[in-house]
Amino acid sequence: MRSKFLLAVFYLFISAAVSGQIPALERVEPAFWWAGMKNPELQLIVHGKNIADREASISYPGVTLKGVNKVENPNYLFLDLELSPDVAPGTFSISFNKKGQKRLSYNYTLKARDTSPNRIQGVTSKDFIYLIMPDRFANGDKKNDVIKGMKETALNRDSMYYRHGGDIQGIIDHLDYLKDLGVTALWLNPVLENDQPKTSYHGYANTENYQIDPRFGTNELYRKLVDECHARGMKMIKDLVHNHLGSEHWTIKDLPSKDWIHQWPSYTKSSFRDQVLFDPYAAESEKKQMTDGWFDVHMPDMNQANPYVKKYFTQSHIWWIEFAGLDGFRLDTYAYNDPVFMAEWAKEIKREYPRFTFFAETWVHGVPNQVFFTQGNTVNRGFDTGLPGVTDFQSLWAINETLNGKFGWDEGVTRLYTTTASDFVYQDATRNVMFLDNHDLSRFYSVVGEDLNKYKSGIAWLLTTRGIPQMYYGTEILMKNFSNPDGLVREDFKGGWPGDKVNKFRPDGRTERENDAFNYVRTLANYRKNNEVLQTGKLMQYVPENGVYVYFRYNTDKTVMVIMNTGDKEETLKIARFNERTAGFNAAVNIVSGESLPSFTQLTVPAKTTWVLELKK
Amino acid sequence: MRSKFLLAVFYLFISAAVSGQIPALERVEPAFWWAGMKNPELQLIVHGKNIADREASISYPGVTLKGVNKVENPNYLFLDLELSPDVAPGTFSISFNKKGQKRLSYNYTLKARDTSPNRIQGVTSKDFIYLIMPDRFANGDKKNDVIKGMKETALNRDSMYYRHGGDIQGIIDHLDYLKDLGVTALWLNPVLENDQPKTSYHGYANTENYQIDPRFGTNELYRKLVDECHARGMKMIKDLVHNHLGSEHWTIKDLPSKDWIHQWPSYTKSSFRDQVLFDPYAAESEKKQMTDGWFDVHMPDMNQANPYVKKYFTQSHIWWIEFAGLDGFRLDTYAYNDPVFMAEWAKEIKREYPRFTFFAETWVHGVPNQVFFTQGNTVNRGFDTGLPGVTDFQSLWAINETLNGKFGWDEGVTRLYTTTASDFVYQDATRNVMFLDNHDLSRFYSVVGEDLNKYKSGIAWLLTTRGIPQMYYGTEILMKNFSNPDGLVREDFKGGWPGDKVNKFRPDGRTERENDAFNYVRTLANYRKNNEVLQTGKLMQYVPENGVYVYFRYNTDKTVMVIMNTGDKEETLKIARFNERTAGFNAAVNIVSGESLPSFTQLTVPAKTTWVLELKK
Repeated sequence: MRSKFLLAVFYLFISAAVSGQIPALERVEPAFWWAGMKNPELQLIVHGKNIADREASISYPGVTLKGVNKVENPNYLFLDLELSPDVAPGTFSISFNKKGQKRLSYNYTLKARDTSPNRIQGVTSKDFIYLIMPDRFANGDKKNDVIKGMKETALNRDSMYYRHGGDIQGIIDHLDYLKDLGVTALWLNPVLENDQPKTSYHGYANTENYQIDPRFGTNELYRKLVDECHARGMKMIKDLVHNHLGSEHWTIKDLPSKDWIHQWPSYTKSSFRDQVLFDPYAAESEKKQMTDGWFDVHMPDMNQANPYVKKYFTQSHIWWIEFAGLDGFRLDTYAYNDPVFMAEWAKEIKREYPRFTFFAETWVHGVPNQVFFTQGNTVNRGFDTGLPGVTDFQSLWAINETLNGKFGWDEGVTRLYTTTASDFVYQDATRNVMFLDNHDLSRFYSVVGEDLNKYKSGIAWLLTTRGIPQMYYGTEILMKNFSNPDGLVREDFKGGWPGDKVNKFRPDGRTERENDAFNYVRTLANYRKNNEVLQTGKLMQYVPENGVYVYFRYNTDKTVMVIMNTGDKEETLKIARFNERTAGFNAAVNIVSGESLPSFTQLTVPAKTTWVLELKK
Repeated sequence: MRSKFLLAVFYLFISAAVSGQIPALERVEPAFWWAGMKNPELQLIVHGKNIADREASISYPGVTLKGVNKVENPNYLFLDLELSPDVAPGTFSISFNKKGQKRLSYNYTLKARDTSPNRIQGVTSKDFIYLIMPDRFANGDKKNDVIKGMKETALNRDSMYYRHGGDIQGIIDHLDYLKDLGVTALWLNPVLENDQPKTSYHGYANTENYQIDPRFGTNELYRKLVDECHARGMKMIKDLVHNHLGSEHWTIKDLPSKDWIHQWPSYTKSSFRDQVLFDPYAAESEKKQMTDGWFDVHMPDMNQANPYVKKYFTQSHIWWIEFAGLDGFRLDTYAYNDPVFMAEWAKEIKREYPRFTFFAETWVHGVPNQVFFTQGNTVNRGFDTGLPGVTDFQSLWAINETLNGKFGWDEGVTRLYTTTASDFVYQDATRNVMFLDNHDLSRFYSVVGEDLNKYKSGIAWLLTTRGIPQMYYGTEILMKNFSNPDGLVREDFKGGWPGDKVNKFRPDGRTERENDAFNYVRTLANYRKNNEVLQTGKLMQYVPENGVYVYFRYNTDKTVMVIMNTGDKEETLKIARFNERTAGFNAAVNIVSGESLPSFTQLTVPAKTTWVLELKK
């Protein structure tokens, strides 16, 4: 730990050295903006050697320079602009003058907004999200594998910790594969520049807020990806990190002020203990460590009470929505943020984009722990986080217990039933994201012991329960491994790289078993995509008996019955028990096999099998 | 199950036979009432052969017969009386006339209320509750062991299912023992008459609502017990069953109407699934089975939507408070009741007795499941149960995991920390009752593998955490056994019966180990009794580290620090971590041993040991 702290000190030393070399006008961010945004305010961060010694001025109709803010570091100015509602798109000059010195200026553009209707749609329970780790999915452009001048240049597909060369073009190249699979929304792990010396591939230590990492592509290529998604009826979710920046971020290397980040006498990690946030008995010191402690020595913890930090982050997020036409955000490490800032942030985003949605990672244990973070929960008296949904880790623990535990009064599939019943604590549990695995977790197929029946039960649940289902890349082709100890949950999608010996994107590259899994996902995901009943239909569930869990999704058009037998032997059910939902139906078709059931008065479900049935009159 | 159902049918057959034999005026309940109650309404249930054929009349100043209600069964009348606020205590006649028949009358008394200040006090976190199963604690009166004419006459101390002869006098005889132990409130399992043919000892199938079981004593002796408690600064909690009556209850044997109880086409047990009550996705059929299904074939499920049932129950509860001066209620099988009735009931009780308190059994798994039942919870949108507190099963599961599990991020003592942190979901978690065992659960000493160190840690937690601590009789003398499979958790307290070979009520009857346990409980309970800091002091807790959980109770006068080392090796703590609570103190005294700690900058706590320290300046 101490050595890591010394490393951090070293970075600060380097940063001081670097700051001496910056030109008098290094950069202005956001580099451009749009005319006609709802929020008339715009704050520009201006960075340049002793820029604070200069006087800033703007002359453009509809743009008022309301304030010029100086901070501790003379290399920064924060300019407060007010844009009138009818300001015209165009370019104007921002001048920075000092008597006796050469005049500096920056040409600032206000663009016209893109009002195409299929942009900025929001992600809802109608969607099926596919999570991609961009470095590990497909390499569509070998030219950007290594970028000269960046700190990490080694490419090594044999190591989990080096870059592998996956990129945005690789994703674009496989959009048709994903569309065919039934995916309707992509969530990429962060793609902003991570110019860190090590393990930059994961993307969670960004060094730029407005630039796609050149090893993934350009801002324009990212926008093209979003357009290509929209053209296929798919959506794009951007992964945001509010909590920290990479230690090589330019503002970290030349801190605007000491309180830009949380400073500690010696390196102090977050406790990662969500409980202190709501515990009525928590010590202040433990609350502080939780939110102000660093996530990692390479990830300085942002001071989200600093008004310039707030604006810098929030504006960059709005910029990306507007620039790329994004449909949703996934918020990383949500619990470690300042809750007050996050609530303000949520309001700002919703004010600008009422249709836009976001969900947050809340890797916690316990329904109370999770609901605490959600919008409109009433347990968190008087404070509304404004967070529409969370990644539902409680349902994840429950489906794992369902498939690997032993059935009992509170164990096995009863856990899944009970966790679902607890939805009453949420304002709207259908805004939560359901998942079986992700980039931090053991792959689902390994979790269920590579048992294809259990795997199918998990997939069936994922695609038929309430909420927004999310799948991790490769789960459809039975990619495996554990996050601990082997950590190989971020392996490449075979076939994504030119020269790969097998191509799992194609049926002929997959084994029979992999095709079985793929087709199972594809069939259910496409049924879901084409049938509102699984998107927005009501849910009714019954208390599990003998290890069998039965639930229904239904609307005025259709009724789908899901029967999950988690036991080791076949079970027979009488349909009469479910009369509230089955009355009026006298037949059922298995959605996956297409077969009609021989009878609909009594069903015998094989061991470890889940049936998804559409009921028929 | 079928045979049990036939048994129920048989009872109904018997009941019809019996009803033919009742006299023309069998009984009026409540048999008397009080002048000057807040609620002016009083409903009398009148039972007699064809009593509905007669005309009822009353003549007494301040008493108005507002209504005479007939039901399906002509053997019942329900009389609605209104008592004016200034009605004088006294006796008046209620006449039941029918032309050509002998006039019947009942002398009804309105008594003066007992306004002694030490009655009806409420039970709070200042108390330490001791739960007694009256048949198994002490036999103070051998004359009432067998009562002629009652259905169960066999006395057999060698069987867990027969009566053993314990009684109210036995409890009175040991009040000084309990006072010395530090107990401030008694909760007795139900003591109303249970004239059932089998296993009547447990008391949960009452056959009278206004009569103490003669094998326990008389109504007057029960009142004497309460008085004796009050004289010693102790309180009395009565155990109520709203959900059901015994199948031999007089109203069950001659049902006022079919809808007095929940009727089913064939015997239908409750599902005992609390989840259906709050599950937004539950089927109506499953809700109905939960609340309307029978607890047991011998326990018909009351129809709590029936207005006469409501009045009959509620009035009997108020009657007992007023008659005996009770301080609190414990509500049995709370989750199986009609929630609407229970909320109305709570209002009625509080209206009459604002200081009076009650808590309910909510034997459920999960904080959301438990909070659902509590007063002022906000998750249960728009519906307030009015239930001040519950028996906190979640903390019970957590302390068991603490002492028997292995420490981890969410396991072992972390579970206890997290469960306590979840108190934010309650309006006031200090109204919940904490416990290590009760009459339905394995005895705590057995649960912890008869490990005296673990036992002491559990006791220390019980008596120092927030809430109202409750101990089961005999836990202080290391009584043991499991509820399943051996079921011997209701054994006699040795020494409670004349002729018992050993007497565990006395130090010389206890083993060294038992005295060690007893003295541990006694010392902490008396410290708690004498120090408000453990009753109403604030709580501050710290995230467990290395299996060590540290928390404080504090007020302006005192600070108590509890250090629970759950691990298998000693652990050293730096006091500086707890500066928010330890600043200003430079010494600590172990409350149990009385010893001062050698230093208060760093502490080394032995393996599996809990220290309760009072901090000193």
